[in-house]
Amino acid sequence: MNQSDHQAALAAIVGAANVLTNAADQAAYLTDWRKHYTGRAMAIVRPGSTEEVAAVVRHCATHGIAIVPQGGNTGMAGGATPDTSGQAIVMSLTRMNRIRKLDVTDNSITVEAGCVLATIQQAAINVDRLFPLSLASEGSCTIGGNLSSNAGGTGVLRYGNTRDLCLGLEVVTANGDIIGARADGEVRGLRKDNTGYDLKDLFIGAEGTLGIITAATLKLYPAPRARVTAFAALATPRAALQLLTLAQQRCGATLTAFELISDLAISLVERHYPPHRSPFAVRHPYAVLMEISDHEDEAHATAMLEGLMEQALEDGLIDDAAIAQSLSQSDDLWQLRERVSEAQAMEGKNIKHDISVPISRIADFIETTDALIAAAWPGVCMVNFGHLGDGNLHYNVSPASGETEAAFMAKQGPVNKLVYDSVERFGGSISAEHGLGQLKREEILRYKPATEVALMRTIKAALDPQGIMNPGKVL
Amino acid sequence: MNQSDHQAALAAIVGAANVLTNAADQAAYLTDWRKHYTGRAMAIVRPGSTEEVAAVVRHCATHGIAIVPQGGNTGMAGGATPDTSGQAIVMSLTRMNRIRKLDVTDNSITVEAGCVLATIQQAAINVDRLFPLSLASEGSCTIGGNLSSNAGGTGVLRYGNTRDLCLGLEVVTANGDIIGARADGEVRGLRKDNTGYDLKDLFIGAEGTLGIITAATLKLYPAPRARVTAFAALATPRAALQLLTLAQQRCGATLTAFELISDLAISLVERHYPPHRSPFAVRHPYAVLMEISDHEDEAHATAMLEGLMEQALEDGLIDDAAIAQSLSQSDDLWQLRERVSEAQAMEGKNIKHDISVPISRIADFIETTDALIAAAWPGVCMVNFGHLGDGNLHYNVSPASGETEAAFMAKQGPVNKLVYDSVERFGGSISAEHGLGQLKREEILRYKPATEVALMRTIKAALDPQGIMNPGKVL
Repeated sequence: MNQSDHQAALAAIVGAANVLTNAADQAAYLTDWRKHYTGRAMAIVRPGSTEEVAAVVRHCATHGIAIVPQGGNTGMAGGATPDTSGQAIVMSLTRMNRIRKLDVTDNSITVEAGCVLATIQQAAINVDRLFPLSLASEGSCTIGGNLSSNAGGTGVLRYGNTRDLCLGLEVVTANGDIIGARADGEVRGLRKDNTGYDLKDLFIGAEGTLGIITAATLKLYPAPRARVTAFAALATPRAALQLLTLAQQRCGATLTAFELISDLAISLVERHYPPHRSPFAVRHPYAVLMEISDHEDEAHATAMLEGLMEQALEDGLIDDAAIAQSLSQSDDLWQLRERVSEAQAMEGKNIKHDISVPISRIADFIETTDALIAAAWPGVCMVNFGHLGDGNLHYNVSPASGETEAAFMAKQGPVNKLVYDSVERFGGSISAEHGLGQLKREEILRYKPATEVALMRTIKAALDPQGIMNPGKVL
Repeated sequence: MNQSDHQAALAAIVGAANVLTNAADQAAYLTDWRKHYTGRAMAIVRPGSTEEVAAVVRHCATHGIAIVPQGGNTGMAGGATPDTSGQAIVMSLTRMNRIRKLDVTDNSITVEAGCVLATIQQAAINVDRLFPLSLASEGSCTIGGNLSSNAGGTGVLRYGNTRDLCLGLEVVTANGDIIGARADGEVRGLRKDNTGYDLKDLFIGAEGTLGIITAATLKLYPAPRARVTAFAALATPRAALQLLTLAQQRCGATLTAFELISDLAISLVERHYPPHRSPFAVRHPYAVLMEISDHEDEAHATAMLEGLMEQALEDGLIDDAAIAQSLSQSDDLWQLRERVSEAQAMEGKNIKHDISVPISRIADFIETTDALIAAAWPGVCMVNFGHLGDGNLHYNVSPASGETEAAFMAKQGPVNKLVYDSVERFGGSISAEHGLGQLKREEILRYKPATEVALMRTIKAALDPQGIMNPGKVL
């Protein structure tokens, strides 16, 4: 069969309108979100059901055609972009966007892979429930991509990563079998089921290299009655760690966010998004953004945060504190955190790292790594922020004053290596929440023990012996 | 090599004192906790370190010797008992019982597989932290067994199964590689790490059939400031479900236990453990035991429970309620739940089922299945209790009045089949928290889709091609 025969065979499965073959139609699917990678594809195939996904996979398996699954195309590591051979198909799951089921007693929702995250959040809100996964691209990313990359975000401290929010998966394997669904099409989603190997967690975070996630049953939580945000000024990341321990003791599971932001990061947001400003009259080296989600009421949540801040001031952990008195004040504080990436991008290119270390080592990591970078490249700027409660930093490096972008970006390799070597010495991970994709596929070999890489290869070879599932990603 | 050569080779690795070959020394390792299975072994081998485990595995891999890993030997499904061939070794991990590390800022503890669960709980208490895994055998079960069977228990509603409490694993694979440990021997335990396949969750719940868990890094939580227990009288499981939803809304994450107990179950405890009595003057068909773990104080927790109970009475969900006013009252209420199994055993043998269904279907499941059983075997008694908040019931059947034990137990096969077929129709699991072991290894084939069984076999063949890891269990 030649390419047009394959295109016709795929059209017979999903309909001609859902097999995109010309350049203009394909363009949006071939370049990643960060515009680092552009590939080519034999076709963009848009199945409308699990059965269609399975039939497409069987066709590809028979003919050895590579499949690149894609959701909202918002990935940070090029995991959903095909290579330049033009031999693969991109399978876009966005047509599979139904909410199949929602049960308030089970506190669960069953959704298809192409559901946009914000749609799921809203469906939960509509029945007084919370789906706690929340991240910057929530308006366009899909849950299939969130699951495939085990996305993190701002609610991990309390609710865990996407993996922790998943009760059951429907998956099409590399040979076209459908697993995880009952005979009636329902996706299993039990709170307890110890009947053999944990197949679901093998596909979560595998970035489409072992099979295609087509639907999932996810956890919901009762909607909190109140959310209250506070901003605390601190001198050091070490003080922030002590504040974290105190907040966990005093607030328990009501503590749902604990974000560290350096003063430089705040300054960049203030410069580029002027309505948003630090609530403090004077500058402080660091700030922590905290959120309490309370099942009682706003007065109770505010009192809890006030009590915490008073004790933190007394203990000398913080220098100042502000508690949002309204939803709009709370949103303002959150913008100081959420706009950092965009504000930094407006200054020009920078070298990003999505890393994690054990929480207890974050302060040492920052001190040590800042010093190493300052010694190697005097004058470069550290824009340092992230999910302190999870040990996850977005540890970004910007050019020294007056340095050209080209000169600075030429340092990317050595800067990455210095940062990742430091992460490794502190027992951390070079990809905390963004995955490996094609971006860190080579780099990980430097840090992951050979025995673990070998085991990953064994699993890949067993589940996808032809290597048709998203080749060139992860491994 | 003959058997005594192998015994000598193993003694050279772990020391002669740690290779048990005579019948008297071996006996305690060869029969399971419930005394359903007795096997034989070439030797009981008791390694003292991960390196010794790896060396033993390499010896066994070279010579095709089967390995049956064993912890506290408290399993409910015969998963740690060898077959009767006498060709396997039992590898007891109980000498590996060190707590390697505890970090209060990370809220994590690294323990060896042979650590007794209660020891880990106590280590956490000593630093004002909570390790929330709690189950009946906690005084003798080991964490390696808890992880290998993904144990549940009474804290799952809030904290999840053992899987959810694990941040990282050290494992010896079937070829004798050690994975999950850093070069310095520390077991990785990051809150976020998206650098490839989730190897850890493959070994959790695999019951030793894919590799041997030698150590783990586990989550700790801040110790709650107060725990308050309540007991509510209800007419039906359906009312209990409505109470669960109400409790989740009003108490959020402070709700840490929600157990259903039938009146017959309570009566059995009262008969056999007379100091423990229902707090209510009259009988009610069902009771719910609830626990609040509060990060504020006892007054706050008690007020929250009182408010909940008042509303539940007003809404007509419950008929009566009692809130424990002291630790000893609280312990009394818990005994009514925890003594059920023992009390039922004192009445004679019964047919047990550890099943789960979606939470929303529990009431329908009980009604339907009770009726089917009553029609098939008039007069038999249902002793029904369990973790309602997780959809997990211990749905046990006792003989009709006057029926001999032998006559009753002859029905075990058909009773199991009726119950499990009903579980399947309700979309449930035939093993919620006890695993498959050798007990349900055949039965699961009736209920798990063939595609999923095939995928499990593919994984087993890839990770343990010789089939030496705990053969005859799970698959």
